[in-house]
Amino acid sequence: MDRKITLAHGDGGELAHKLIQQIFVSAFGNTRESHFDASFLSLDSGQIAVTTDSFVVKPLFFPGGDIGKIAVSGTVNDLAVAGAVPLYLTAGFIIEEGFLLADLRQIVQSLADEARAAGVRVVAGDTKVVEKGSVDGVYINTAGIGIARSGKTVDPKTIESGDVVITSGTIGDHGIAILAARGELGLVTDLKSDCAPLNRMIDAVMDAAIAVKMMRDPTRGGVATTLVEIAEDFKVTIQLQEQALPIRREVVGACDILGFDPLYLANEGKVLMIVPKAEEERTLAILRRFPEGANAATIGEVTDTENGKLLLETPLGSRRRLHRLSGMMLPRIC
Amino acid sequence: MDRKITLAHGDGGELAHKLIQQIFVSAFGNTRESHFDASFLSLDSGQIAVTTDSFVVKPLFFPGGDIGKIAVSGTVNDLAVAGAVPLYLTAGFIIEEGFLLADLRQIVQSLADEARAAGVRVVAGDTKVVEKGSVDGVYINTAGIGIARSGKTVDPKTIESGDVVITSGTIGDHGIAILAARGELGLVTDLKSDCAPLNRMIDAVMDAAIAVKMMRDPTRGGVATTLVEIAEDFKVTIQLQEQALPIRREVVGACDILGFDPLYLANEGKVLMIVPKAEEERTLAILRRFPEGANAATIGEVTDTENGKLLLETPLGSRRRLHRLSGMMLPRIC
Repeated sequence: MDRKITLAHGDGGELAHKLIQQIFVSAFGNTRESHFDASFLSLDSGQIAVTTDSFVVKPLFFPGGDIGKIAVSGTVNDLAVAGAVPLYLTAGFIIEEGFLLADLRQIVQSLADEARAAGVRVVAGDTKVVEKGSVDGVYINTAGIGIARSGKTVDPKTIESGDVVITSGTIGDHGIAILAARGELGLVTDLKSDCAPLNRMIDAVMDAAIAVKMMRDPTRGGVATTLVEIAEDFKVTIQLQEQALPIRREVVGACDILGFDPLYLANEGKVLMIVPKAEEERTLAILRRFPEGANAATIGEVTDTENGKLLLETPLGSRRRLHRLSGMMLPRIC
Repeated sequence: MDRKITLAHGDGGELAHKLIQQIFVSAFGNTRESHFDASFLSLDSGQIAVTTDSFVVKPLFFPGGDIGKIAVSGTVNDLAVAGAVPLYLTAGFIIEEGFLLADLRQIVQSLADEARAAGVRVVAGDTKVVEKGSVDGVYINTAGIGIARSGKTVDPKTIESGDVVITSGTIGDHGIAILAARGELGLVTDLKSDCAPLNRMIDAVMDAAIAVKMMRDPTRGGVATTLVEIAEDFKVTIQLQEQALPIRREVVGACDILGFDPLYLANEGKVLMIVPKAEEERTLAILRRFPEGANAATIGEVTDTENGKLLLETPLGSRRRLHRLSGMMLPRIC
């Protein structure tokens, strides 16, 4: 087999056939079940959840993950935070001519491994090859299909004053890990991306019948942008406690040097939950049972249900309003 | 609003929010139904069909279509030829910094219009922006979800000698239209791409209870590669009649000049069907009722069910074996 991807690997002919057989079929452990470009799947439930995301993360390999891993966790998490149970993924690869087959193999294997770990099946795929310079290495799109959870679902309309806002762990890890991996800013750190599928941890919370009122994964735009969206969509005021935010020492340090605010950095393995005050401790206890929830913490509360805004209270008691991310340049973070 | 896409349009913040509101929400006519990154959908059937495809066609606009149109028809057709009824699409856009918003708007509108025409709904979307030079304009991934047709389905195991192979129209139009649109080969022609969703025409054939044994859309790799795959997968010999192939004059002319074989050129609005000889005329009559099936024709027959190969018989009676496309360089045809 060749060492590098050529345009002929993408033309639908003999080499494309071999590429699929040798890299994709083996990684996903499928024998070819369908003779069509579509897979047929049986579902127990009549209600499905659907999402899609493209991944253009740079660099392709970074501490804590790679583009294959993030392509699974990003899409699985979008389904899980919507209150659905992720079941199936599709994966579309756009590959640059000259890309190393060994790297492609590693990325595909990583995607397959992560899907297996998350309990989802990759049921359809596609590869396109474009000329050198027409894509930066490889981009992956995944679409995810899940089933709606029967019984208890997330219901943001029930958010009320006194509800607490919980993060499943430290914030900003992914953003700083990616920046450091790019090597552009002279940042040296042991920090790893938090990139991980959260569906099993979220399952545990939902299965415990916690009345989760809203969940979101704070990816692009970070915790602040995600909470501003929730605040505006449901006309609630959320007040964060600055000293309650769990932030790794390395992230604080990097933000000090670079002038970034950790509240706006992307996370790829965190969930924000709004739950009743009465269920705060039980929720934290369940989250902390999982490695990805070890640093779960309450970071704020809902203080008003008539105005849609996000406030940050400092240790000295002053409050300032936070807005959506605006003009902060961290392209290709996922 | 700005005239060009900037990196900030992709960072998940304020500008990204505006871009989605102003271009995507208006084109798809959705009010924002979900506060999550996933859509919930109800299905009548418990069996769904899933597919995905990325589109990197160059140029983005070409006679007969654009990348938005092809992103719908390609995925809708993959579902339809599998015997499923397409219902939902997801759409992921990867956009180059500096891309004209007017062009993006036109592409998104074209995608929305085409989805409406095909009777499918775009239920989830994503946009990423990458630095200038890291993608060539815009690439689109669509994933498609359909339901399995109840009752009569396509059954390739019933293929037998004497069955006929039908094309829904002329072959090679898309390949030559794209080459001409690139302007690289000095090819001047009025030819249009055949790019079109075929689900309504295929529905009509299936609804008429024609015993379709196999269907495929001959895209990348063309009619020959598609039929080689069918021949190999089901161990049948298919013999094409060269003089029966419907090929437009412009395509014959361009192939003569460029040394291409129309059997290997991509089509984006054609379906190949294998049906019993007894249903040949009825199938052709149904196909010809549709504009996209006006030139439907029988192009060959199944001559053996023990050997998987594709043969081409010339007008003089000589036969040669055809293989998969191998090393023919037409990158970014879809």
